[in-house]
Amino acid sequence: MLSGRDLVALADLSREEILYLLDTAQAMKEVLTRDIKKVPTLRGKTVVNLFFEPSTRTRTSFEIAGKRLSADVINFSAATSSLTKGETLKDTARNIEAMVVDAVVVRHSASGAVRYLARELDVPVINAGDGAHEHPTQGLLDIFTIRERKGSVEGLKVAVAGDIAHSRVARSGIHGLLKLGAQVVVAGPPTMVPPDIERLGVSVASSVEEVLGEVDVVIMLRIQMERQSSPLFPSLREYSRYFGLNMEKLKSVSRDLLIMHPGPVNWGVELSPEVAYHPRNVILDQVTNGVAVRMAVLYAIIGG
Amino acid sequence: MLSGRDLVALADLSREEILYLLDTAQAMKEVLTRDIKKVPTLRGKTVVNLFFEPSTRTRTSFEIAGKRLSADVINFSAATSSLTKGETLKDTARNIEAMVVDAVVVRHSASGAVRYLARELDVPVINAGDGAHEHPTQGLLDIFTIRERKGSVEGLKVAVAGDIAHSRVARSGIHGLLKLGAQVVVAGPPTMVPPDIERLGVSVASSVEEVLGEVDVVIMLRIQMERQSSPLFPSLREYSRYFGLNMEKLKSVSRDLLIMHPGPVNWGVELSPEVAYHPRNVILDQVTNGVAVRMAVLYAIIGG
Amino acid sequence: MLSGRDLVALADLSREEILYLLDTAQAMKEVLTRDIKKVPTLRGKTVVNLFFEPSTRTRTSFEIAGKRLSADVINFSAATSSLTKGETLKDTARNIEAMVVDAVVVRHSASGAVRYLARELDVPVINAGDGAHEHPTQGLLDIFTIRERKGSVEGLKVAVAGDIAHSRVARSGIHGLLKLGAQVVVAGPPTMVPPDIERLGVSVASSVEEVLGEVDVVIMLRIQMERQSSPLFPSLREYSRYFGLNMEKLKSVSRDLLIMHPGPVNWGVELSPEVAYHPRNVILDQVTNGVAVRMAVLYAIIGG
Repeated sequence: MLSGRDLVALADLSREEILYLLDTAQAMKEVLTRDIKKVPTLRGKTVVNLFFEPSTRTRTSFEIAGKRLSADVINFSAATSSLTKGETLKDTARNIEAMVVDAVVVRHSASGAVRYLARELDVPVINAGDGAHEHPTQGLLDIFTIRERKGSVEGLKVAVAGDIAHSRVARSGIHGLLKLGAQVVVAGPPTMVPPDIERLGVSVASSVEEVLGEVDVVIMLRIQMERQSSPLFPSLREYSRYFGLNMEKLKSVSRDLLIMHPGPVNWGVELSPEVAYHPRNVILDQVTNGVAVRMAVLYAIIGG
Repeated sequence: MLSGRDLVALADLSREEILYLLDTAQAMKEVLTRDIKKVPTLRGKTVVNLFFEPSTRTRTSFEIAGKRLSADVINFSAATSSLTKGETLKDTARNIEAMVVDAVVVRHSASGAVRYLARELDVPVINAGDGAHEHPTQGLLDIFTIRERKGSVEGLKVAVAGDIAHSRVARSGIHGLLKLGAQVVVAGPPTMVPPDIERLGVSVASSVEEVLGEVDVVIMLRIQMERQSSPLFPSLREYSRYFGLNMEKLKSVSRDLLIMHPGPVNWGVELSPEVAYHPRNVILDQVTNGVAVRMAVLYAIIGG
Repeated sequence: MLSGRDLVALADLSREEILYLLDTAQAMKEVLTRDIKKVPTLRGKTVVNLFFEPSTRTRTSFEIAGKRLSADVINFSAATSSLTKGETLKDTARNIEAMVVDAVVVRHSASGAVRYLARELDVPVINAGDGAHEHPTQGLLDIFTIRERKGSVEGLKVAVAGDIAHSRVARSGIHGLLKLGAQVVVAGPPTMVPPDIERLGVSVASSVEEVLGEVDVVIMLRIQMERQSSPLFPSLREYSRYFGLNMEKLKSVSRDLLIMHPGPVNWGVELSPEVAYHPRNVILDQVTNGVAVRMAVLYAIIGG
């Protein structure tokens, strides 16, 4: 269904394509429970992780996913590469393509960089996160985790809390969830919520607490503290009060609420440290499902 | 024919050995067109990329080549290694050898470093570029690309333009081309052409334009702008005028001229940006052929 | 015997467990002599090298060991990872575990960090060196090398010379050697020998020369020159005189003395340069045996 295509954004996929990837990921997750966690599906195929921005976790997840499918995985960290010699983004990518590879997984700090490369290259391009645009495999793994726990996504109510404006995780999650029939409510400081966000089809709340009683899932976003040159909110304590979760706030809510976070968590900011041990925290399930989802994406695009 | 031997320089190889590597690369290139681009030839063999100078492209090309042959490829970046602990070049290399590997691919910023290691080690050493000395697999891929397009190298006239004095690409290309019966003319600013270069058997021109009408191939060298502490020429614009190529200069020349460059190109310096789309630009073929040539070298040395 | 367990310290292992690992390493070393140096034992298993401190040699040795057993090996350099984003040690490790891997090989600059992770994770954790605590595979490879040359360790007398207090190599070696019935004498500047070291069951000498005539093996430790902010001894020359080895000191000793060093050597400090060519220097054997020992450890823990 997606054979030979790019995966730049969940906004580009139909409901059917997303469901197909989720179902494929389900089959892949079964492979992860075996003693020999490896299938020969992509033997002889080469996947390049072309990372223009460091991200050891996402790179590792794609690398493990590729190797579980028996692909050869090559890590090309463009941060330390000849880009320092003034090479252009396109030149680097076309060089990798010319080495006759089967897919290129791209991470870049600039929104739109991955779509640009997808247009320039003949080889399938998979977005591993581009600026504040999209991070489609993160969106898929979030949705997969919700579906796994809730049975279905249709009709659920999902809150996304934090820096909505600058989050590729939020953007991919919103597009995917809406396509599968969920309702989405976003909550974040006014400076972190785009003014026209409701056009996407989501509603807006002014704090996490306000919606906690009525949602089935809450996706807490990471505050990118290392990127805040001019801070977008008065203080971490205040952020935490309105957009973080602690045991106090969680006491009164449904036993079935799922607590999600793309990681790494700033403990004490988005989540208080005790939430790490909360029985409805599914953050590590998300990590496991990330491998299954990336296996599904690689399989669908290269192996299908 | 080259089984168990080092590959330090094309200057060391006979005409027959070069032809054998080119023919082997031809067979390897056929593997790259298959759906499963992998052969079991080097299964159980271990190749170490021992890079004392960063070069993501060349390292990636060797890594892909090794994996296509089913070798295990280990990347050892000595820049970030215990060399910072004062370890010597020889100690590092002998340690790698003691881990019982089958070949070591070495990149080093000092001319002669690879020959030195080849003498010190029992395991085959393959030069991935040493200072201004040689870059034999680059020379081979250049010659392979010429032969692929022209049928044969014998009798062709090839121009090499740029910083001849400091270029390992130029040196390997010149040695290989002359051995196969081509004529070579070099063109570069006076400060960048060694005074005794004609002894190698090449002629000298004072600009690229001067020879463009009479050559079959032009190999444009990269200006190492990041290495120019005291500039070797007055200005980039002047360099470009005499030793760069643009559409204007290319208008009047033969339809069959091949335009080559080892990459990455400084667009606007060695080549004007429009040359990227010139039908006789074979720069990306060179990259593809680089994988085939490195497969051939690994096969000839380890697998033969 | 060690299936599914952690390997944090040789202090934790029984004499029988150490002997089992040495015997297994013996079988693995035989694999290294074959033309195809690879066995399918760990096919489908994933080993992650999780290095919070750079160490290209140890990482490479584990990587080669894993690949020789057909495991997939993933390098996760936490120095350059999201730790810079404030992620905790435990979070990083639990994330890796959640990717469903079979063993995690951990290097960390803090003593105790690996034991901490071993307690937190369900997946087996293998210590690749933690601060000044232990480096158990180094201890095993040292003992393996001694046993290979001497037939048995029982009853031998082994000197360990240098910075005993801060050396994980010394600590692992001492624990392992004592368990196998060797006598150990340590020699180092007073500032580098812990006051209560004799409690471990070793004796103390005031120079290397003092014990050279009576020992079967001398393990020279590396002076961590890059870590000496306030120097622990007056001068390198003085250190060398009392705790280094040169040909003069070696002239009068037994033909059977083994000279060992974990590498990389500071030539001219711990060993004079000529000792590199001494026939009883077994430093490179140690490196080869390191691969065999790490194959044995991975096999015993994951494959058993």
